[in-house]
Amino acid sequence: MNIIKVEVLPSAGSAILPYLDDKLVVVIDVLRATSTMVTALANGCQAIVPVLTAEEAVEKRWALPGSLLGGERRSLRMEGFDLGNSPFDYVPEKVGGKRVIMTTTNGTRAIRAAAGAKHVWMASFLNLQSVARAVGHKVEEEPDLGGLVIFCAGTEGRFDLPDTFCAGLLIQELGREAELNDLGQAARTLYGAAEGHLPDAIRGSEHGRRLVSLGFEQDVIYCATCNILPIVPAFVEGEVVWLTDL
Amino acid sequence: MNIIKVEVLPSAGSAILPYLDDKLVVVIDVLRATSTMVTALANGCQAIVPVLTAEEAVEKRWALPGSLLGGERRSLRMEGFDLGNSPFDYVPEKVGGKRVIMTTTNGTRAIRAAAGAKHVWMASFLNLQSVARAVGHKVEEEPDLGGLVIFCAGTEGRFDLPDTFCAGLLIQELGREAELNDLGQAARTLYGAAEGHLPDAIRGSEHGRRLVSLGFEQDVIYCATCNILPIVPAFVEGEVVWLTDL
Repeated sequence: MNIIKVEVLPSAGSAILPYLDDKLVVVIDVLRATSTMVTALANGCQAIVPVLTAEEAVEKRWALPGSLLGGERRSLRMEGFDLGNSPFDYVPEKVGGKRVIMTTTNGTRAIRAAAGAKHVWMASFLNLQSVARAVGHKVEEEPDLGGLVIFCAGTEGRFDLPDTFCAGLLIQELGREAELNDLGQAARTLYGAAEGHLPDAIRGSEHGRRLVSLGFEQDVIYCATCNILPIVPAFVEGEVVWLTDL
Repeated sequence: MNIIKVEVLPSAGSAILPYLDDKLVVVIDVLRATSTMVTALANGCQAIVPVLTAEEAVEKRWALPGSLLGGERRSLRMEGFDLGNSPFDYVPEKVGGKRVIMTTTNGTRAIRAAAGAKHVWMASFLNLQSVARAVGHKVEEEPDLGGLVIFCAGTEGRFDLPDTFCAGLLIQELGREAELNDLGQAARTLYGAAEGHLPDAIRGSEHGRRLVSLGFEQDVIYCATCNILPIVPAFVEGEVVWLTDL
């Protein structure tokens, strides 16, 4: 089993990262974009189209009739949008069989920033184990893969505890020797310290506290739930889809 | 005893941080700028003048005859400079009674970025306890202080484990209730996990490994030593000096 090089990187807005072309990137935005995308796909959503701005979302809908608009600014649904950024908005009755054009402050920008990578997948606690297994297979299948980049979409470019915990659990679940950068080492230690009281640790983070104060406590609790959705979402040809050829 | 608001921030280059005017900022660059500054002051250096570029350093020397030039690029001393960024360069025979004009990749830039704060101090493991005590006094003395910002100069704007450990120890040594941002919570946990094997943890960081590979292992070991220098350096009127009116 070869040693895998794992870099955990904080989000840096939507600037496209330049050196990813031989890498597998896993984008994490626990609160809430990637958790919500995984949930949407599990509920029958056909694809999510991540866009950077509300204007781009509205334009895109002209090209994709029948699709829904989703996302947030300052954690809240935007005027004229069908869905917010809460996973509970993305129920089967609303998203089943449909495309959602989505723009969020951090998550969708991070996906676009990573678009040049060999593979771009999304993780959250909800689907963590499935992603970890898929990463393991991919590393075996593609010996020329340049490594794994875990891209924490975070909160407006700042260090974000929930995403870092999730990165740490992903590293732990890989269960193989890894060469880690500083943030990777930190993520592993921080997840280890939070294990067993993860929902409290996430609720106590800056973003967790803000969402609770806005009335989204149930979202925070749901997003802290591990391994309930066996889905690996991938960004392919401009859309986030359920990756089935694993 | 009032609750203190503590934000740990990663370095963001030399962009001046805008909202610091009522805050006490402690700049940390364990490997090696703030460790070296503390050492220089302990060895009789009169003041350190942080500048952003080698050109600015050379210009400044014209205005300050008799001063020395110090600093690094890519961890190495620059041509024409008297001193590098190793604390072992800053011995009493060289720096005693003199000013050092200094430019480093991260530390001196972070000091300049924080220049608008009410107070700007420097910490390293070497002088940690003295800084922690002084912070405690300052918080009591100035009830209108807007909080403490711990500014991790890091490695070219990336998350840096040694600085984060040091921030964590500073939070621990404050010994008072603190309202922490995510990176502050992480710093406290990460220091707790590294306590007892701090030199190894620092050597195992990205920056630690790079310095060891360049032959600076003794620097790394020295910079991981706690509380041997009872000095609080402060940035006052463009210079880093030993703060004696505590």
